[in-house]
Amino acid sequence: MKDLAEGLPGAVATVRAISEGRLSAESALQARLERCAAMEAEIGAWVHLDAEGALAHARALDAGPMRGPLHGVALGIKDIFAVRDMPWRCGSPIWADRIAPFDAGSVALARAAGAVILGKTETTEFAGYQPSRTRNPVVPGATPGGSSSGSAAAVAAGMVPLALGTQTSGSIIRPASFCGVVGYKPSFDLVETWGVAVFARSFDTVGAFARSVPDAALAIEALSGLALQPGRTTATPRLIPFRGPTWDIGSPELHALWTDFETSLPAEQSAPFAAALSATMRDIPALHARIMAVEASEALAHEYEIGADLLSAKLRAQLEEGAAQTPEQRLNDRSAMLAFRQRMMAETSPGDIWLTPAAPGAAPPFESGTGDPAFNRIWSLLGFPACTVPLLEDSAGRPIGVQVVGRLGEDALVLEVADRLMRDRFEHGEI
Amino acid sequence: MKDLAEGLPGAVATVRAISEGRLSAESALQARLERCAAMEAEIGAWVHLDAEGALAHARALDAGPMRGPLHGVALGIKDIFAVRDMPWRCGSPIWADRIAPFDAGSVALARAAGAVILGKTETTEFAGYQPSRTRNPVVPGATPGGSSSGSAAAVAAGMVPLALGTQTSGSIIRPASFCGVVGYKPSFDLVETWGVAVFARSFDTVGAFARSVPDAALAIEALSGLALQPGRTTATPRLIPFRGPTWDIGSPELHALWTDFETSLPAEQSAPFAAALSATMRDIPALHARIMAVEASEALAHEYEIGADLLSAKLRAQLEEGAAQTPEQRLNDRSAMLAFRQRMMAETSPGDIWLTPAAPGAAPPFESGTGDPAFNRIWSLLGFPACTVPLLEDSAGRPIGVQVVGRLGEDALVLEVADRLMRDRFEHGEI
Repeated sequence: MKDLAEGLPGAVATVRAISEGRLSAESALQARLERCAAMEAEIGAWVHLDAEGALAHARALDAGPMRGPLHGVALGIKDIFAVRDMPWRCGSPIWADRIAPFDAGSVALARAAGAVILGKTETTEFAGYQPSRTRNPVVPGATPGGSSSGSAAAVAAGMVPLALGTQTSGSIIRPASFCGVVGYKPSFDLVETWGVAVFARSFDTVGAFARSVPDAALAIEALSGLALQPGRTTATPRLIPFRGPTWDIGSPELHALWTDFETSLPAEQSAPFAAALSATMRDIPALHARIMAVEASEALAHEYEIGADLLSAKLRAQLEEGAAQTPEQRLNDRSAMLAFRQRMMAETSPGDIWLTPAAPGAAPPFESGTGDPAFNRIWSLLGFPACTVPLLEDSAGRPIGVQVVGRLGEDALVLEVADRLMRDRFEHGEI
Repeated sequence: MKDLAEGLPGAVATVRAISEGRLSAESALQARLERCAAMEAEIGAWVHLDAEGALAHARALDAGPMRGPLHGVALGIKDIFAVRDMPWRCGSPIWADRIAPFDAGSVALARAAGAVILGKTETTEFAGYQPSRTRNPVVPGATPGGSSSGSAAAVAAGMVPLALGTQTSGSIIRPASFCGVVGYKPSFDLVETWGVAVFARSFDTVGAFARSVPDAALAIEALSGLALQPGRTTATPRLIPFRGPTWDIGSPELHALWTDFETSLPAEQSAPFAAALSATMRDIPALHARIMAVEASEALAHEYEIGADLLSAKLRAQLEEGAAQTPEQRLNDRSAMLAFRQRMMAETSPGDIWLTPAAPGAAPPFESGTGDPAFNRIWSLLGFPACTVPLLEDSAGRPIGVQVVGRLGEDALVLEVADRLMRDRFEHGEI
């Protein structure tokens, strides 16, 4: 896989260089704008690119003291987040003309930390399954995945070092895997949610795309006030390679690559996953899909009322399926969700880290949709933190991510393990 | 306590009468508009009262078939919810001129169910602790409580049969107690959250004010698609009278009334609360307050950036206290919250129902603020469903609520018990 950001400093390196007087925010931004100029026509990552506003902001930053941990870092924002005075279309013609009257909380926090908001990135329709126009920068003819399509593609193409996205089923981990970048979905509600259009309130989670784990950690540190950088935790992970209940839908190439990956893990740190819990998981992807449909029908009740005819057939069917669910099914499903969350915390231990495929295989063709979130639904339902790192590559050079998952609240350990895996990969070549 | 809604049908009765052709939505609304005209100057419950729009909507409903479970019910909406084309001020001068460009999900669901949106009700500043102008309709000179001040007061004054509000610490249960109405805070995330301005994402919960438990249940049934009406559950509650760790701040009158109430409970259904768990709860109110400050500083980061000088001194101090918390404290607090939630579900049983005071006493004077949410913080942190019913009355005739609380997801049983307590009260006089 070719590196489309070669020579461009990442977020951590940019902030360090600016703070040491070796780089200006303006020149860092200029280099990214050049990548945008070179790539955007082909990729279509942006709904709105505010080069002029971003340059003015970068110059203002250069004229003052260091503002915070993201000082001078160009940031792409998925178009379901409100960014004041920018379009807020959510990938739907219903909101074609809407301009956000305020900043989402996470956007304001990023600004306060010194980030330069470069613009809004393409999303699938309301962050559901109807694709955007965005193309995969590293796999010709393929989908970048969804729903955070533009954020993943912009980072993969080197147009920004960092971008914000959200995950409800697999909308961070899957596109990151398909585009060969790092994608980090924090623990549920670790990051502020206000001003981000909701699809399913029980699962929606704000996270980040980057080219390294420290860069992704930096973004979420700035938004949460937590210390998340790798290299600081003293906890010892227990690595649990986990194929999961959706293994059978994985591609033959995934199966071969994953089997090799498992073999490469240090045996003394690894452990099998409890069989009883594993069996319980079989019903979870379908449970997640049903609750997601119900909650989407509630979150998008206004859009359905004012513009049902402007919804894609796919989304409309999903909303109507959700709205039609019986009171009994709703109650049973919510009870099953709560019970599974309770049980997973009761029957696992601090330090448990699951290693699982990020996606069923490499990015499928653009025309086929945005790919299958099957390997992500369980962790989205649990709200567990997950970080994918681009460790695997099929024979055609297409990336596949390894998804590192921890228990609720164990974000620092997830990032620690993800970072160690990335370093092993790049220091020793093949694992 | 005088009944300011005497002679006016509640929500359930209104829908039934309309469906049976005995009442029109227009005449039901007219009766409420008369109450508004008589009371609003004194109470100040409304930010925006759309009498004309509501009348037009009621007439349109009368001209068509029954639309849903709230057909023809006038509804007040707390001014932190977005209601399209209505003011969306959130009790702050920062948003004095903001008009909402869309409906919150819950508002759209209420409309789809046939509710008539009468207007926006007063809220404390961003649903925090800085009071609105609203007065208590049943206790002269007293606060209605907060933050859902206008919704509680509007229902207490008979201006609407139903109103939506939210709770982060005690913003539904406390004002309902002070105003002598029913307040129902559902399980966390049972009701759609989109389009409701966030104060603290881990606690904010949409709920309802009404004059009876069936009316409150009707509102949340319409928003959640669940079956919640009393009289349907077959589960047997285990009643746990619980004074809680904040008992000492209760007023002498509360202490006397509560002791009598405990004596009135049927001994064969009651049980003591586990001492070990009870001891754990001592630190929870302070934990809740710390997390609330941190999350509010994140949710309101944009408002702080664009209008810090327009924030009240009280809110500004709370946001700055939250923003200043160390990474270690943040991590410890989130871990403690997750552990307490996990433990409370592990060490209690389905059917457990806690009966606790809704507030430390009757409504305090208007000038003293909106009262203390101390008796509500534990349940808000847990996300447990709670319903307060106006069962107690001090020697001056001022109401105090009994708060009925259940485990996460056991909303139907909470409403069942709350309804039984209400019926006992009104069928047998004193308990």
